[in-house]
Amino acid sequence: MSVIDDCLEHNKEFVRTFAGPMPLVPARHLAVVACMDSRIDVFACLGLGLGEAHVIRNAGGVVTDDVLRSLAISQRKLKTREIIVIHHTECGLQTFTDEAFKDELEQATGSRPTWEEKCFTEVDASVRESVQMLHDSPFLADVEHIRGFVFEVATGALREVTP
Amino acid sequence: MSVIDDCLEHNKEFVRTFAGPMPLVPARHLAVVACMDSRIDVFACLGLGLGEAHVIRNAGGVVTDDVLRSLAISQRKLKTREIIVIHHTECGLQTFTDEAFKDELEQATGSRPTWEEKCFTEVDASVRESVQMLHDSPFLADVEHIRGFVFEVATGALREVTP
Repeated sequence: MSVIDDCLEHNKEFVRTFAGPMPLVPARHLAVVACMDSRIDVFACLGLGLGEAHVIRNAGGVVTDDVLRSLAISQRKLKTREIIVIHHTECGLQTFTDEAFKDELEQATGSRPTWEEKCFTEVDASVRESVQMLHDSPFLADVEHIRGFVFEVATGALREVTP
Repeated sequence: MSVIDDCLEHNKEFVRTFAGPMPLVPARHLAVVACMDSRIDVFACLGLGLGEAHVIRNAGGVVTDDVLRSLAISQRKLKTREIIVIHHTECGLQTFTDEAFKDELEQATGSRPTWEEKCFTEVDASVRESVQMLHDSPFLADVEHIRGFVFEVATGALREVTP
């Protein structure tokens, strides 16, 4: 049995206690941008309930064009007004460079990826850069409430990064 | 008090019962691509525990260059081997078109966004397209275990979309 089949079994139980329909607009008017890392449960670590916040995640929790697309929709179509950015300690993106990874993929496949390059060495600097990119984007409706954090994977604590 | 301050208060409680350090590599070798919608708790609806799966989320749960970047890192650097794609009923992306949204932003800001266009009208077709894009990408290491689902926001159930 694949992992996916096992997840589907769990979903049957989940449905039994599901709270039911909720509004499309997030109740707390919040959007979270976080790394895809498996050790970060965004709802749990922020005390969020179902229906309360949009959750946008990618490798790093970095700001790409696709994150800006998602946040613009979140703010302008679905009324969110605050943004939390979460990167974390011991991130995979600190273990290689974009250039080396693209070289590796080109050698393996004959094609070179064209995606945005987002690896980083210093996590605080990466959080600051992401928050600044959100402040600088013309497409967000509210840039007053944007704050950046480092999630400590050893303790579960969020440490704020000052701008 | 802003919503973010309230989340930070909750994080202090979260830290008290945090399980502690876990490996960087996801224990179930799984990556999930899902919509940012606030009504989807990816860990809960799939019965996943902390440290078990990468979670990649954007507006729609659609496959963009940034999603391919994240999945390529997930598979080639962090050993995931299965992918679940989750779109959902009543998605915000079904309520407007990319063209109209870009027009709206251009009128409001004087700049036109260049991000990938990903709105859709029919959710099953969008899941199929996303799964196909993953199969077609040269950059993923394992394309055998990719399956797509529609999350029903009224019931919490996952319905598989056949290719």
